[in-house]
Amino acid sequence: MADYLPFDQVRRIAVLGTGTIGASWTAYFLARGYAVSAWDPGDGWKANLREFIDRAWPQLQTIGLEPGADTAALTFLDDPVSAVSTADFVQENAPERLDIKKELYGKIDYALPAQAIFSSSTSGLILSELVADLGTSHRFVVGHPFNPPHLIPLVEVVGARQTDPAVIDWAMGFYKHIGKHPIRIRKEVPGHLANRLQAALWREATWAVVNDLASVEDINAAISQGPGLRLAVMGPHMIFNLTGGKGGFEKFYSHFGPAMESWWQTMQGEPELTPELCAQIVDGLREEAGERTINDLEAERDRKLLAVLKALRDTT
Amino acid sequence: MADYLPFDQVRRIAVLGTGTIGASWTAYFLARGYAVSAWDPGDGWKANLREFIDRAWPQLQTIGLEPGADTAALTFLDDPVSAVSTADFVQENAPERLDIKKELYGKIDYALPAQAIFSSSTSGLILSELVADLGTSHRFVVGHPFNPPHLIPLVEVVGARQTDPAVIDWAMGFYKHIGKHPIRIRKEVPGHLANRLQAALWREATWAVVNDLASVEDINAAISQGPGLRLAVMGPHMIFNLTGGKGGFEKFYSHFGPAMESWWQTMQGEPELTPELCAQIVDGLREEAGERTINDLEAERDRKLLAVLKALRDTT
Repeated sequence: MADYLPFDQVRRIAVLGTGTIGASWTAYFLARGYAVSAWDPGDGWKANLREFIDRAWPQLQTIGLEPGADTAALTFLDDPVSAVSTADFVQENAPERLDIKKELYGKIDYALPAQAIFSSSTSGLILSELVADLGTSHRFVVGHPFNPPHLIPLVEVVGARQTDPAVIDWAMGFYKHIGKHPIRIRKEVPGHLANRLQAALWREATWAVVNDLASVEDINAAISQGPGLRLAVMGPHMIFNLTGGKGGFEKFYSHFGPAMESWWQTMQGEPELTPELCAQIVDGLREEAGERTINDLEAERDRKLLAVLKALRDTT
Repeated sequence: MADYLPFDQVRRIAVLGTGTIGASWTAYFLARGYAVSAWDPGDGWKANLREFIDRAWPQLQTIGLEPGADTAALTFLDDPVSAVSTADFVQENAPERLDIKKELYGKIDYALPAQAIFSSSTSGLILSELVADLGTSHRFVVGHPFNPPHLIPLVEVVGARQTDPAVIDWAMGFYKHIGKHPIRIRKEVPGHLANRLQAALWREATWAVVNDLASVEDINAAISQGPGLRLAVMGPHMIFNLTGGKGGFEKFYSHFGPAMESWWQTMQGEPELTPELCAQIVDGLREEAGERTINDLEAERDRKLLAVLKALRDTT
């Protein structure tokens, strides 16, 4: 890793695109004591970003700020080239469209300082395609976070065919260095890993609506009051390691594997995402939400997430 | 519901089968202040049950005991007929085999007191088949908990074709009365609802091993450090309601629905559960577990679960 900066020499991070994900990354980098150069092409982005940071800062204080962390360490830039030209690390959060990201990458390609690493938050695009025409493609990597990135530890790190393996190691190390939980995805597949797992779960949760198995509220509770609580503590294979009792995973596999296989065989491929199905889920969500607005629910999610994260951090 | 007991007149609960699930139910009912008549056909079950309760009691104290709750309110019975004959409510946790449960149900059928409700913890069997030959079938219901039932709030309530609808209402009300989070499953399908959702997730988590997408440890973290944290807070449809930002679920559906559909199309049906795959997952779990034994991991799961439950309860 001689070619790349030691982690403790990283000073300035560029954030390209400051929508929901980019704004949350910006708040997190500031809380970890970095200077941030932000850029977004949208109208009113500076006020929106400032507002997001002001809302997230008390949450980040609860988690614990790095000494010297300061919301004033944020610089607003009017073009992406200026933003990356002084950066040691770049986190890109442009819209999920191949043409938009490729145009942006082309612009900043040679503006990227010699030791800087460029990480994309892309959830659905394939990095090898995004960087195909770049001169600095070997320094591009995917660092895919989960919403909201300033609270959720997971970052999926994926390299393109063109990525220097040392850059993947560097990104894994850097995300860990700043308090994230990076995992290494070994292949470029649509949706990386965690979103594929979520999509599999949501597919069956959607079938449950289509098949009128339970109300939308009860389908939500089927996870959040049950297996979801365990999945905040341990991942799916480890949870089933404990389902086997003293016999461990082998016992789970031999005793419950056949039941799992029989349930799989009754799963039905892709439900059709019709407007009627959307309306049905929205009605159910409205019933569950009651008086709570989207803002209320978002604030509640973040309060509870913070409480869960704190509880898990304080329990070994 | 005139035919069935008011919840506050329920005094004694029979627990049939005191393996992992039955022992945990027993501890929970005792903590809620009920007298419990327990029965199990296995060797050494009384000592095992006592040991389980002693281990679970401090956890239940943390959650809060009902006034008068006492581990001494437990009676060990040598046959199931004696156990149910004085019970107001029965929770059955016999092995997941049609023949075993049917034999047991046949034995206790007419011993069930006139107002008592019989609830089965079955996760995989169809109640209508289990109760087909019974005289008291209208008072049988499924009350399927999640491991460990003394900590996880979810209970799935399902009626058989033969079940009196008032009995389903009664069971929903009673589980709620004792501090559980019951949900009503409207149809008898293999695995009810929550296990189908888990099975869908585990199928994709198993494909990730087969396809060498990441290490077993990283596949676990893909959930527990990411979406799993959110799923302890809100269910899958509600989480995606917030993914849409101000636009809510409709925006998620129109913006991310097509991505979900494209990921679904790359999912591959059932992986083959070979011995080699089991060994590969076990190796990965061993690496993740390090020095921790199954007992250590189980204790850690329960400590963290308790902390998460407490954090969620204290945060509105």
